[in-house]
Amino acid sequence: VDIVFASQIETPESWLPRLRRALPADRFFVWPECGDRERVEVALVGEPPRDALATFPNLKLIQSLWMGVDGLLADPTLPRAVPLARMVDAGMVAAMAETVLVHVLDWHRHLYRYREHQADGVWKRHRQYMACDRTVGLLGLGALGSEAARRLLLMGFKVCGWSRRPKRIEGVECFSDLGEVLKRSQALVCLLPLTAQTRCVLNASAFAAMPEHSCVINIARGAHVVEADLLAALDSGHLAHAYLDVFETEPLPEAHPFWHHPKVTLTPHCAALTEPRTAVPVLVENIERVRRGEPALNLVDPSAGY
Amino acid sequence: VDIVFASQIETPESWLPRLRRALPADRFFVWPECGDRERVEVALVGEPPRDALATFPNLKLIQSLWMGVDGLLADPTLPRAVPLARMVDAGMVAAMAETVLVHVLDWHRHLYRYREHQADGVWKRHRQYMACDRTVGLLGLGALGSEAARRLLLMGFKVCGWSRRPKRIEGVECFSDLGEVLKRSQALVCLLPLTAQTRCVLNASAFAAMPEHSCVINIARGAHVVEADLLAALDSGHLAHAYLDVFETEPLPEAHPFWHHPKVTLTPHCAALTEPRTAVPVLVENIERVRRGEPALNLVDPSAGY
Repeated sequence: VDIVFASQIETPESWLPRLRRALPADRFFVWPECGDRERVEVALVGEPPRDALATFPNLKLIQSLWMGVDGLLADPTLPRAVPLARMVDAGMVAAMAETVLVHVLDWHRHLYRYREHQADGVWKRHRQYMACDRTVGLLGLGALGSEAARRLLLMGFKVCGWSRRPKRIEGVECFSDLGEVLKRSQALVCLLPLTAQTRCVLNASAFAAMPEHSCVINIARGAHVVEADLLAALDSGHLAHAYLDVFETEPLPEAHPFWHHPKVTLTPHCAALTEPRTAVPVLVENIERVRRGEPALNLVDPSAGY
Repeated sequence: VDIVFASQIETPESWLPRLRRALPADRFFVWPECGDRERVEVALVGEPPRDALATFPNLKLIQSLWMGVDGLLADPTLPRAVPLARMVDAGMVAAMAETVLVHVLDWHRHLYRYREHQADGVWKRHRQYMACDRTVGLLGLGALGSEAARRLLLMGFKVCGWSRRPKRIEGVECFSDLGEVLKRSQALVCLLPLTAQTRCVLNASAFAAMPEHSCVINIARGAHVVEADLLAALDSGHLAHAYLDVFETEPLPEAHPFWHHPKVTLTPHCAALTEPRTAVPVLVENIERVRRGEPALNLVDPSAGY
């Protein structure tokens, strides 16, 4: 099989050596290099150059290197007839669960407040809670949400969650009614795919439905949050803190109020990166499936948007 | 049994209602109130007023409300002939494990660096590691260390540890040679009791033995660290960051360089507080043992210092 690697973000050196070792009989090209365009059957992409994919007439699989495919689906030059698979790899799922844990624990142990005290030179303790006093709400209960839930439960937190499709996860209160999750969530974690249904899900009425002094953790997509509503909920004192990894515009513009807001902990879209060590075996499996003429794993349902 | 509660720090309202409900036939006094001094058999203490304990001639147990008893043992007015028990309660053990996890994850996910970037308005990603790329070293493998180890292992970290007495913990590389732990530890966590043997254990030669760009987490006692040596190791760039909860002098003096050091995350001795909900059953068990004339749980060995 001829395979083209086309990404403006991912570096080929992190991927190609592993892929070539795993699949020595296949031919890998790095866009714009691509050999005979008619022979290319698989494109490995993460923000591919516009129009690039449409130049391969016999493409059988577009394989995203990333879990989120909202960017790809928004590209009008994406060949819609070609099956699209998203990446679900163990390293990325684990990284996301680590990020959920560190932010939930930072809030639970009051570390965001202690950092403020440190800056002010103030020695002051806050009341300690037990993990079982705290309910964490997960928006999204797929591969990411269920692993985050498992680890939160191991730490003793109460966990509830919301998903479009009904889910059953041991120990997790699962709801299809968002309001049920919002009213319970002292820490609310957004892990949703970005779709027409989930855009702006974290808005003024969602924040108002949450308990006083809760925190919001958005590590999905910037467009899940109505930024002005979040700022208002933080400034009014209703929300205690926000941990934000993703933004409507990235990199976050210099003048954006999130940068220096005392109630915002901001990271540069690094909550979880695809990990080539665990992702390459997933790519290999899907390339083998193309070779055998079988459907790929983790195919995107364009009508659902993920 | 007559029991006196004597603490300059712990508030009786957090403890007495639960104790009275659990032991309705016993009599509880809050120092300086104490009824008939000759009848008091148990003292519940956390920094008791000096000389207080020596005024009870028939004391059968001094029960610390805290895990660390170095302060008590350093008090020359402590009646040495009376058995002394330290507190080991599930809530406090869990709190300490949460604190270990949050600091290890903060370092592992580079959050201390991203906070600096946020303050500087810089959008910059750092390389992601997997938990299995990281070795966490635990100094102390008792109740605290073994629970921290269990949770770190569940998160996928490699864990090694050092203890005075040989220990075997599934999945943990246990050493009695401190150097073996130091040279492996990319994150080093101090959970030791403070004794003559452990005082100043975190000194210049210990830091030099650690890998470059490691972090140190001290949530035991301030006197475990030679503060000037730690500052030197941070300032030279050898250590990447220190998470410090405890200090030689507490509250930390206003002019101390830790307050505003860019490589220090500082908390006000709050890594884990005794949790009355889980500690009261331990107190009740030990009071019942006094009543039955049996030795208490968690007795301190004065020669070991804990």
